[in-house]
Amino acid sequence: MRVTVLGAGYMGSAMAKVARDRGHDVTLWGTWLDDAMLEPLERGEAHPRLAMTLPGLRLARSAALAEVTRGAELVICGVNSDGVAEVMRRAAPTLPPVPIVSVTKGLLESKAGRMERVDQVIGEVLGRDPRFVHASGPAKAMEISRGVLTWMCFAGADAAFAAGALAGDHLVVGTTDDIAGAELCSALKNAYATGLGMWDGHVGSNAHDARAACFTQAIAEMRAIVVASGGRADTVHGPAGIGDLHVTAAAGRNRAFGERIGRGEPAKEVARDMLAKGELTEGYMAIATAKRYAKERGIGGLHLLDAIHGVVWEGADVGATLRGLRLG
Amino acid sequence: MRVTVLGAGYMGSAMAKVARDRGHDVTLWGTWLDDAMLEPLERGEAHPRLAMTLPGLRLARSAALAEVTRGAELVICGVNSDGVAEVMRRAAPTLPPVPIVSVTKGLLESKAGRMERVDQVIGEVLGRDPRFVHASGPAKAMEISRGVLTWMCFAGADAAFAAGALAGDHLVVGTTDDIAGAELCSALKNAYATGLGMWDGHVGSNAHDARAACFTQAIAEMRAIVVASGGRADTVHGPAGIGDLHVTAAAGRNRAFGERIGRGEPAKEVARDMLAKGELTEGYMAIATAKRYAKERGIGGLHLLDAIHGVVWEGADVGATLRGLRLG
Repeated sequence: MRVTVLGAGYMGSAMAKVARDRGHDVTLWGTWLDDAMLEPLERGEAHPRLAMTLPGLRLARSAALAEVTRGAELVICGVNSDGVAEVMRRAAPTLPPVPIVSVTKGLLESKAGRMERVDQVIGEVLGRDPRFVHASGPAKAMEISRGVLTWMCFAGADAAFAAGALAGDHLVVGTTDDIAGAELCSALKNAYATGLGMWDGHVGSNAHDARAACFTQAIAEMRAIVVASGGRADTVHGPAGIGDLHVTAAAGRNRAFGERIGRGEPAKEVARDMLAKGELTEGYMAIATAKRYAKERGIGGLHLLDAIHGVVWEGADVGATLRGLRLG
Repeated sequence: MRVTVLGAGYMGSAMAKVARDRGHDVTLWGTWLDDAMLEPLERGEAHPRLAMTLPGLRLARSAALAEVTRGAELVICGVNSDGVAEVMRRAAPTLPPVPIVSVTKGLLESKAGRMERVDQVIGEVLGRDPRFVHASGPAKAMEISRGVLTWMCFAGADAAFAAGALAGDHLVVGTTDDIAGAELCSALKNAYATGLGMWDGHVGSNAHDARAACFTQAIAEMRAIVVASGGRADTVHGPAGIGDLHVTAAAGRNRAFGERIGRGEPAKEVARDMLAKGELTEGYMAIATAKRYAKERGIGGLHLLDAIHGVVWEGADVGATLRGLRLG
């Protein structure tokens, strides 16, 4: 099958390797920001982020977007939420109506000015059903590219087709038609994961109870948001929700961000510092977009999200906020 | 309220402190194995395990069982699963029919020779409804005694009464009538937590995807066992299941046990070594009892439990077992 991967960063490149390992004819296309990723690959050297060579891939620079999309039988979109709408706008004239496996995690602003799921906003951009298959679940690019057991959940009407093309070996892929549930889990877990690290900074090393309580509360709030959005609770209780929150909360940068805030450093200063070092996680913005998404729909009772937003975006005192946190 | 706590180890003593902080008249009774815990407390010194003094408690040695049970309005049972049946057998003649808050986690053998929940076996011992309130959820003794935010779930017909007596301040207590679900979660999480550490040893430090996949799979299997036993899925999706598995899987000794097995050390040798050092977790036996519980009820499809049992108790090769693990 001819597979075109859009975006040559971490996840796009890792998914390109997976597709190649399945025997497909794979083109890895880099955006106008990805030249530094492609140059070493063109010389047969390692991908700068994945730190491994990726033999057998066709490589294409950003100017070749029209030719790499024409004739594709499956598209994998590995562009992050900042760039995905612009890439899709540029690809639209030549993009065939084939399924698009999307690893983009986040919420985007629609033409009407509301926060919506990525598939909905890309549908607006393309002016048609984008045939999105959202690839959710705990999947770190460094690990899927190295063969660590990974359990993803593909969501959408074409999920079974996409899973048939990409699953195998160490990559286990479940499928669901609940794209609302899966996309919301992917977007929300970034917001909640960032908040879980606060406890370490605030309490010290022995905050296991509090972290576990907040992990449980995060799942309950993600479920409330998903169900209020027409998604299903069982999506939250599988790899898309529990699994992805677990991997994200355990990751170093989310914890580091939360820890520093928990110790009392103002969140804006921590964010500025981590941004300067290239270490700021998606969680920082995700907290703001998740809060806005819930507010626009009148979804209440999100005590943990409110607490995280208060500390990170409204300057609330971290100690008082954590002590006053409501659970359940 | 007159509260009697049976068992002066970690959890009994921590719950005694909680009860005292709520203003109750609390007696902490030590079993025949707990003299070393009580002696320092009698001299006003720190509890050897909790490493803190516990002022305001009445203290009682094992011989005083009859007098500490007579007149109790609430009993808290902090004896572990090895000793709980014997303590209850000795207490039976003087134990009033008041609610018993039980923190005992595990499965016990009934008179009929089957693995059953603790409340069921204690019901056999007492010859009546034991009025058990199972205290589930992520609650480390060191943390609840130090005021770290903790979210427990009390389960049983008298859960609201017990929660009213003990909840407050940093201890958030939800209630449910689903004692089957809560007790099974408490017993099963020890088995699954031990298994999650295997990935670290087998893969090395970057096994986040695999651990998150297995965490999700563990929740799915716990849910299957709970539902097959008449419990409810929502209990698994709250603090009793997700929360307690989270805290247990993060704890040092479970991970250490799994890591060594994951690196290829025979499980029996690791268990013997950790037992000799006093470091063996409840998870080791819990794997065997969980497997037996499921087998006695014909509950199938427990791929992760089967894999963990195979490696830990049947000498299966850890690499081949993990590589062949089925998810979903």
